[in-house]
Amino acid sequence: MAGNTFGSIFTLTTFGESHGAAIGGIIDGCPAGLTIDLKAVEIEMNRRKPGQSAIVTQRKEEDSVQFLSGIFEGVTTGTPIGFVINNTDQKSKDYSHIKDVYRPSHADYTYDKKYGQRDYRGGGRSSARETACRVVAGAIAKQLLKDIKITAYTSSVGELTLEKSYKELDFSEIEKNPVRCADKNMAAKMETYIKEIKKQGDTVGGVISCVIQNVPVGLGEPVFDKLHTQLGKAMLSINAVKGFEYGSGFEGVKMKGSEHNDIFNTDGSTKTNHSGGVQGGISNGEDIYFKVAFKPVATLMQKQQTINAEGNATEMQGKGRHDPCVVPRAVPIVEAMAALVIADFWLLNKISKL
Amino acid sequence: MAGNTFGSIFTLTTFGESHGAAIGGIIDGCPAGLTIDLKAVEIEMNRRKPGQSAIVTQRKEEDSVQFLSGIFEGVTTGTPIGFVINNTDQKSKDYSHIKDVYRPSHADYTYDKKYGQRDYRGGGRSSARETACRVVAGAIAKQLLKDIKITAYTSSVGELTLEKSYKELDFSEIEKNPVRCADKNMAAKMETYIKEIKKQGDTVGGVISCVIQNVPVGLGEPVFDKLHTQLGKAMLSINAVKGFEYGSGFEGVKMKGSEHNDIFNTDGSTKTNHSGGVQGGISNGEDIYFKVAFKPVATLMQKQQTINAEGNATEMQGKGRHDPCVVPRAVPIVEAMAALVIADFWLLNKISKL
Amino acid sequence: MAGNTFGSIFTLTTFGESHGAAIGGIIDGCPAGLTIDLKAVEIEMNRRKPGQSAIVTQRKEEDSVQFLSGIFEGVTTGTPIGFVINNTDQKSKDYSHIKDVYRPSHADYTYDKKYGQRDYRGGGRSSARETACRVVAGAIAKQLLKDIKITAYTSSVGELTLEKSYKELDFSEIEKNPVRCADKNMAAKMETYIKEIKKQGDTVGGVISCVIQNVPVGLGEPVFDKLHTQLGKAMLSINAVKGFEYGSGFEGVKMKGSEHNDIFNTDGSTKTNHSGGVQGGISNGEDIYFKVAFKPVATLMQKQQTINAEGNATEMQGKGRHDPCVVPRAVPIVEAMAALVIADFWLLNKISKL
Amino acid sequence: MAGNTFGSIFTLTTFGESHGAAIGGIIDGCPAGLTIDLKAVEIEMNRRKPGQSAIVTQRKEEDSVQFLSGIFEGVTTGTPIGFVINNTDQKSKDYSHIKDVYRPSHADYTYDKKYGQRDYRGGGRSSARETACRVVAGAIAKQLLKDIKITAYTSSVGELTLEKSYKELDFSEIEKNPVRCADKNMAAKMETYIKEIKKQGDTVGGVISCVIQNVPVGLGEPVFDKLHTQLGKAMLSINAVKGFEYGSGFEGVKMKGSEHNDIFNTDGSTKTNHSGGVQGGISNGEDIYFKVAFKPVATLMQKQQTINAEGNATEMQGKGRHDPCVVPRAVPIVEAMAALVIADFWLLNKISKL
Repeated sequence: MAGNTFGSIFTLTTFGESHGAAIGGIIDGCPAGLTIDLKAVEIEMNRRKPGQSAIVTQRKEEDSVQFLSGIFEGVTTGTPIGFVINNTDQKSKDYSHIKDVYRPSHADYTYDKKYGQRDYRGGGRSSARETACRVVAGAIAKQLLKDIKITAYTSSVGELTLEKSYKELDFSEIEKNPVRCADKNMAAKMETYIKEIKKQGDTVGGVISCVIQNVPVGLGEPVFDKLHTQLGKAMLSINAVKGFEYGSGFEGVKMKGSEHNDIFNTDGSTKTNHSGGVQGGISNGEDIYFKVAFKPVATLMQKQQTINAEGNATEMQGKGRHDPCVVPRAVPIVEAMAALVIADFWLLNKISKL
Repeated sequence: MAGNTFGSIFTLTTFGESHGAAIGGIIDGCPAGLTIDLKAVEIEMNRRKPGQSAIVTQRKEEDSVQFLSGIFEGVTTGTPIGFVINNTDQKSKDYSHIKDVYRPSHADYTYDKKYGQRDYRGGGRSSARETACRVVAGAIAKQLLKDIKITAYTSSVGELTLEKSYKELDFSEIEKNPVRCADKNMAAKMETYIKEIKKQGDTVGGVISCVIQNVPVGLGEPVFDKLHTQLGKAMLSINAVKGFEYGSGFEGVKMKGSEHNDIFNTDGSTKTNHSGGVQGGISNGEDIYFKVAFKPVATLMQKQQTINAEGNATEMQGKGRHDPCVVPRAVPIVEAMAALVIADFWLLNKISKL
Repeated sequence: MAGNTFGSIFTLTTFGESHGAAIGGIIDGCPAGLTIDLKAVEIEMNRRKPGQSAIVTQRKEEDSVQFLSGIFEGVTTGTPIGFVINNTDQKSKDYSHIKDVYRPSHADYTYDKKYGQRDYRGGGRSSARETACRVVAGAIAKQLLKDIKITAYTSSVGELTLEKSYKELDFSEIEKNPVRCADKNMAAKMETYIKEIKKQGDTVGGVISCVIQNVPVGLGEPVFDKLHTQLGKAMLSINAVKGFEYGSGFEGVKMKGSEHNDIFNTDGSTKTNHSGGVQGGISNGEDIYFKVAFKPVATLMQKQQTINAEGNATEMQGKGRHDPCVVPRAVPIVEAMAALVIADFWLLNKISKL
Repeated sequence: MAGNTFGSIFTLTTFGESHGAAIGGIIDGCPAGLTIDLKAVEIEMNRRKPGQSAIVTQRKEEDSVQFLSGIFEGVTTGTPIGFVINNTDQKSKDYSHIKDVYRPSHADYTYDKKYGQRDYRGGGRSSARETACRVVAGAIAKQLLKDIKITAYTSSVGELTLEKSYKELDFSEIEKNPVRCADKNMAAKMETYIKEIKKQGDTVGGVISCVIQNVPVGLGEPVFDKLHTQLGKAMLSINAVKGFEYGSGFEGVKMKGSEHNDIFNTDGSTKTNHSGGVQGGISNGEDIYFKVAFKPVATLMQKQQTINAEGNATEMQGKGRHDPCVVPRAVPIVEAMAALVIADFWLLNKISKL
């Protein structure tokens, strides 16, 4: 209820502030008998971690996950999987300059008002560091889903937009460039642009596209827990997300029904896929695809006017090492959250009929 | 779990197929002591009901709600509020022509595959008739929220888009035109366009904008149940919705952080509101605003190719009376779902600190 | 959250006061494809209904259930099963004599204090009439569970106690006598005793024993949702219940481990069954058996001292037709709640391992 | 859903096996602003820990809890409280002798059948070591509840039973003797008896009584989440518990309504308290009292016949250091679980009326 649990059957509950002793979580409801590939978990963690390229924050965080339970001799036992990620450099940080200052478009003000206080160090609970736990759980979910392929990539950075459909793209490009764009040329442009923005001490937003393939027909629990509904919830729970659309999305609004309807082939597949793989809230076996909009990072390496807790005007400037654009590191987070949604519905669907 | 309950403290569970005996629901967790204005509930129902204007379906449904419990002598008692809405004309309908046919971009195929069967009459559970129950619950939630003002309106129909900010609009216009557009001139254009589309036996999509005003600071439960996350979930659970964005939304992606950040006034309010009234998943006291994209209605009054349950190609055409554009009748549904979200968080926030 | 939903996957949410328009509920999560035997539901309802014998209340309630959704052409569709039971004689009752009076050991006082008001007519929400909804849902759950046999019977009325183990009893006796005792001679004694108590205008408590047979190994979700934990919760949620024990129960306390341990046979079955069919919170395939203690009914047909809402001393006496002993009519309720628990765990267990 | 979360608003989710790296949990929904007394948490942990006296297991476990989040500068922040308790001596244990053996009346067999495998070391997830996490959370809940006093004590060991009502006892005696009996003389007898049983390599059961005082009127959420219902669930979820009764309990069955009804004083208090402080599932302001039955510990220091995973008969004998009677160490666990229930309802009740 208090907002730190995601999912209904395959659930993730997380805890932790960015500069406390550790962050971590509990994955409950993972079926017994799943052989866990720890290396695969680490690969996902590395995709999210700071310092991986010149266009992301240069913080040095190990992001090393320690599993504490639920896996015995490499296999899940059906009991909860507890894990922690230590905040190794939490003591060295100096956050006294923001102790009483509300950073613009951050959560400082709202946490203070809601809870009467807050852990001000580095964003505390509202820090995107929490998403490391989601990547851990998503990596387990991906292993559960085996044949289902979840692929996210950067499709916009600021005004730069990859206009091609996902079907025209070569997904093998994604991990070859630091932007995680699925097009080589566009990736180069985006990288150059992010570097420029960084030099300005500024930040910029972006869009991540995601495709889920090989999804069986039948996932999703209408009417409130439709497949796209939970995907939307999952994405909107990621830090800095401002919008979600699937299938034809906001553009579909402009179409007529006679253009938008997906006509069936005789095998039940459809000739077009404006539905985005979901009809009536249930997967229809076509590719699921959606877009997620991320706002520009709020922490700037330039002076900004703001106020402090006493309501006095003051000035502030971000210190340390921050991301000029959140999107490259958010790609694995989008995949992880998608995996949690699909895993949950995949399990639920096993008991939807006799 | 099975997807028919919405909310965590103030909850709505619904049941019912479009052509069964009745639809209905249970509202649980409404505090005792709320005087219920039944007339206000009826007004909301009338905004959603068929036959209200020339641009919506001409079906004759009474949509008369009967409260069965939880309200005694006009006041809520703290016990669950059960209600039913009878499907008065359910027997007269003839749906034999779609019994074995999968209508394109409807839920027929997916329900059949997921559940092994379905109530094929008029969409069954997947019919938007279910949303009448949401309007009932939303009308109660609105009364609970008293001073909080929730206003939705049509902002796009097909290519026709109202470009003005909500601040430039006169909300009193909304209920004066059948499109529920907040601008008189645009409303007229939209109405004309919908009539034209209808004549073609076709349908068109649209966008609904919604503004929530006078929201206290502190609503929302990070990290998974952020205020905008639940609003997004709520909207994406409405039939035909393909996208959700709040605050700067997909456009915000193109901005730099230095443009996007909302600088504080000394009273804690902000000079701009790209955040859309939510920071870190918690309301900050500014107006909450968001957009919801609706695809064109799938039922067409023209011939379409499709398949039947045996996988044979066949032809079909919508019969009866359907909406050429779902948006005018969806305005009260958007408001209702927003009210459910806000009511839930408003109650939860009462226990977030000592 | 607000307490009117039971179960996690196979759920029942109920509504209704004893003298409102109707009571009813929503069963969610029942798998599609279950052929419903409505006659079997009616039989269960008749076992609970008033007026069935000389030793229960002589009220005339039809208790006729109307299913509104989720069952199409006799088969469940996977969508929520909504149902109502009209309160046919609710208008004729006169409850003005208890409007401002708190009946001793009833819920009048606590409802008033908690909610600030209450529907005072016949107990309102706290009336055992609500359990009719449980019997409906339990009857569906029983049909889902097919081969699992759930049998409850009266084992004590006041000081009269059936000392035999359930293995020595002939369950076919249960429905042959109005007490629902599984022993003919004891049933006769109990019946005579209840009639005597009734003549005195007094009431008496009792114990119901229940046996669940043919339960597969593996049901139950440790650590908080153990099989016996949920059975206990289920039973303790029934009106007038004061205690629950399973297997060796309170008597087992006195045993040594060397006496209490159930030694295995080589097929995994056990030579004794002090565990009551549950080990570590999970069914082990042996019979599950438990006891439920019911206090004497609080409504007496004799004068009692009490107070009114103003805190003044007053006198009151039950009017109308009440049960001198709740146990005979509670037998089907115990079975129904047990069926709900087992159905929920039976579904959950389908996804506990790969 | 998977059974490792307790509570609805104030929740505890636990993880961990007895011989994995660590056990731990997440407390979610604790209001912000609560000053945490870590010493008080430690005191509760010490009441549960092994080696505290001659009549409990002599294992050396530090049971030192490390809080990882949710508490900042000694005060709760409203964010989840994550904690771990390392299993310091987990590597030194030798459990190879039970790897393929099913210990009688343990959870070995059922875990293996349900999950297809298990962590066999020391009971794994089914070990009572998990309850250390409950004591941590309960200690926080107790601090939240301030004025509400929760007191448990041993009232039976084997046949030795303290017949006095809790009102005749001196609670200050409880922590003065290793049995945690509230009567000095009976404590001595129980201690002697447990030592004797231990010498025999045997074990014995017991009963814990618990009293909750100063509970405000209004806690409990009928109809399914009645106050006593959740208390029963909480207690039945503790390892080795076989029964729960509150107020008049199983004895109340024998009373007539005219004896059992609690007659009101004019201030709303009652002359007797057979109701056990709960009427209609809601606290009435009187003392809440209940009993919990614990079976004898299943691990014996003597030879027993059993079977192995291949279904062959074999012999086994407990090794190491085990409790001859679980009750003395279970007293703080009973209090902790009671505190979790009361904290949850205390918060929920804040929003039950306007």
